[in-house]
Amino acid sequence: MALDPAPRVVVLGAGFAGLRAVRRLGHARVATLWVDARNYHCFLPLLYQVATAGLEPQDIAYPARSILRRLPVVDFQLARVVGADPGAQRLRTTTGEHIPYSHLIVATGGAAEDFGIPGARDATFRLYDLEDARALRNHVLRICECATTEVRATERAALLTFVIVGGGATGVETAGALAEFRRHVVPRDYRAFEASAMRIVLVEAGPELLPPFPPVLRARARRDLEAFGVEVRAGTRVSRITPVGVELAGGAHIPTHTAIWAAGIRAAPVAADLGFPTGRSGRLLVEPTLQIPGQPRVFAAGDVALVAGQERLPQVAQVAIQQGEHAAENVLRVLRGEGLLDFQYRDKGALATIGRSRAVAAIRGLEFAGRPAWWVWLVIHLVMLIGFRNRLVVLVNWAWNYFTYDRGLRAIVGAEHETSEDGERARAAGGPG
Amino acid sequence: MALDPAPRVVVLGAGFAGLRAVRRLGHARVATLWVDARNYHCFLPLLYQVATAGLEPQDIAYPARSILRRLPVVDFQLARVVGADPGAQRLRTTTGEHIPYSHLIVATGGAAEDFGIPGARDATFRLYDLEDARALRNHVLRICECATTEVRATERAALLTFVIVGGGATGVETAGALAEFRRHVVPRDYRAFEASAMRIVLVEAGPELLPPFPPVLRARARRDLEAFGVEVRAGTRVSRITPVGVELAGGAHIPTHTAIWAAGIRAAPVAADLGFPTGRSGRLLVEPTLQIPGQPRVFAAGDVALVAGQERLPQVAQVAIQQGEHAAENVLRVLRGEGLLDFQYRDKGALATIGRSRAVAAIRGLEFAGRPAWWVWLVIHLVMLIGFRNRLVVLVNWAWNYFTYDRGLRAIVGAEHETSEDGERARAAGGPG
Repeated sequence: MALDPAPRVVVLGAGFAGLRAVRRLGHARVATLWVDARNYHCFLPLLYQVATAGLEPQDIAYPARSILRRLPVVDFQLARVVGADPGAQRLRTTTGEHIPYSHLIVATGGAAEDFGIPGARDATFRLYDLEDARALRNHVLRICECATTEVRATERAALLTFVIVGGGATGVETAGALAEFRRHVVPRDYRAFEASAMRIVLVEAGPELLPPFPPVLRARARRDLEAFGVEVRAGTRVSRITPVGVELAGGAHIPTHTAIWAAGIRAAPVAADLGFPTGRSGRLLVEPTLQIPGQPRVFAAGDVALVAGQERLPQVAQVAIQQGEHAAENVLRVLRGEGLLDFQYRDKGALATIGRSRAVAAIRGLEFAGRPAWWVWLVIHLVMLIGFRNRLVVLVNWAWNYFTYDRGLRAIVGAEHETSEDGERARAAGGPG
Repeated sequence: MALDPAPRVVVLGAGFAGLRAVRRLGHARVATLWVDARNYHCFLPLLYQVATAGLEPQDIAYPARSILRRLPVVDFQLARVVGADPGAQRLRTTTGEHIPYSHLIVATGGAAEDFGIPGARDATFRLYDLEDARALRNHVLRICECATTEVRATERAALLTFVIVGGGATGVETAGALAEFRRHVVPRDYRAFEASAMRIVLVEAGPELLPPFPPVLRARARRDLEAFGVEVRAGTRVSRITPVGVELAGGAHIPTHTAIWAAGIRAAPVAADLGFPTGRSGRLLVEPTLQIPGQPRVFAAGDVALVAGQERLPQVAQVAIQQGEHAAENVLRVLRGEGLLDFQYRDKGALATIGRSRAVAAIRGLEFAGRPAWWVWLVIHLVMLIGFRNRLVVLVNWAWNYFTYDRGLRAIVGAEHETSEDGERARAAGGPG
């Protein structure tokens, strides 16, 4: 084994916060090592479009090394970190290798919070990474195929029922995209069942959808979803999820093989392994400077960070972007011997799309909905995407979807092993038949 | 269980032959059921570009149901067929379901022929479907990542050695694409090793590459590959492949973790399960009418068919396309009570690309190479692709690759489980280190 390399600034995580931190450090010509278990940055806000056959995984993924081509002082290492030794200032990876750091920015992101609800972890689909999105897409397409040959009415109904748990942006956008799939794709593709046989249920524990939005837009989003035929069940808690259904707190049971969990976010598990103090939802407690208390060389940013005095900040891309930038800025200040700055969030507004020409926007005091909000949503997401090729291909796919009302990417790739499983599951669910 | 549905013409397989047969029958308004274990047609000639990060799987896949939107008398069923009962005229699927047929066209395609060489089946990557292509792409990208942190020189050399077995079009095109990856991507992405450390070896048992081409073009292809830095070893047999290397018949051993098997084709295994007589490489023996002997209602077309008196036909897309069309035509003739026609192959020529501005073409007596052949290759492949969206996205990706010399699709998606395996494999290969 060679000697450990010289310590550098290490940025752990290739999400929004990590990406911004790396760019800031790289542009300032500070030798930096970027570490992630994946070799790419993923534009998570469009994950639901990958899951609903509108985009391909690579359209919203950008290779880490492509980002670094213009940042010669930054290097990338593909590694899964499993622990840290803050005393020795180094990280430990799955292969036993040590990665020393002079300063560390932890930006390991979020994962699904299941609130201890039985089945929320094991019997649901999620939308936290590209594997999730591919799995959900393949499952939805496969379940539609199963429905074409299923002759038992109750089992067919269960196959064609899709339950989304969580009325935040992810839940609303996924429900809307499934409703568009039902309206525009199902009638053309599946002659064996009516589009109306497909049922989409959006369950939210709180009283309203999209809590960060102003009340008038929350109501508008709900009206738009209902106009699309989505059953919205606000103020409804889920008590249990199994492979054959979702149980609601009141005792009602919705038979389904597709429960999509978009109900909450916690820190990705690696945060707990680093040995730094954690707070609510496993997030790392940090000072307003984004430093870990007692660890002046260690910062946290993005979904993993719980900032003292700012615990109510939403876990969204804008916060992660600004915190990543801020953590890097403070590292630069440490290196220059300057005083650190407290993080302050500048709210740029909120956007959510329900479907074609339907969206809600609350930007700098302006509240608007419908077609204008939808166009703003399209343009902002296209601009935020990384990489010219990605923007171009997303634009082509969106134009295709817009003019043809189609979702073109419906080949089930990479799910060969699911063939029998899904069959088993469907049969197990329906009894002897 | 419901009663079996009414018998229809059944086309088994969604490759070139099956697709053409279905279209011919659909346009003739003959009630047809199209059956495949995958829900899409895949344009296999571009598979190697998916494997080398130039295209996405969905760019060359087209959903079966999209094809059927304009063919209202054709239906699709996603099913894996495991047997046939020719007496009762029905197929049997993995789920125990029976699919009755009035007439059957078997177009189940090919799979890798391993010639009984140890390891050819289990220790290699192939290029027969999109899962293969994704697996190879993820492996190549991951192995480059491993090489950046590998400090043992011999192990790093093994990681960076890529051996392609088979000098047909697939082998030549894959070797060329890897050479372009080495020339244009590696220097920009990987600072830890020189591009020249990457070694690409093309092994062919026969005396020359691209046997179906005229001698002058065979020599040209070899020169072009060698100019790209590919080691061409013609007239060399492989005796054994292991996860750590390829052994050649002479006794030489090439340490590598990446052996790509493109050396031969046989019938996909399902052909043997149908109970019809098979010949060389497990292919179904058919009359010149493409009928199975003694089964006037059963036809075979494409890679799975071995036509009496035409055993030397190459197993390429053009043959499959023409046979699929011909089998459907003969089914129509049976239905109309007309006499059947013998299949006759019209050779439209051969094309293979080595890389940017380098290709060989033998079309209708014309033999040419270099830039003109490359442009012809591009246009023909773009035209042969199914679907406007696919053509547009492939065009965007090709333009991107052309102007930037880049391969943009380098995110490793859907290979999480490989992380540790590849690590293990690399370590096992290199000893204690």
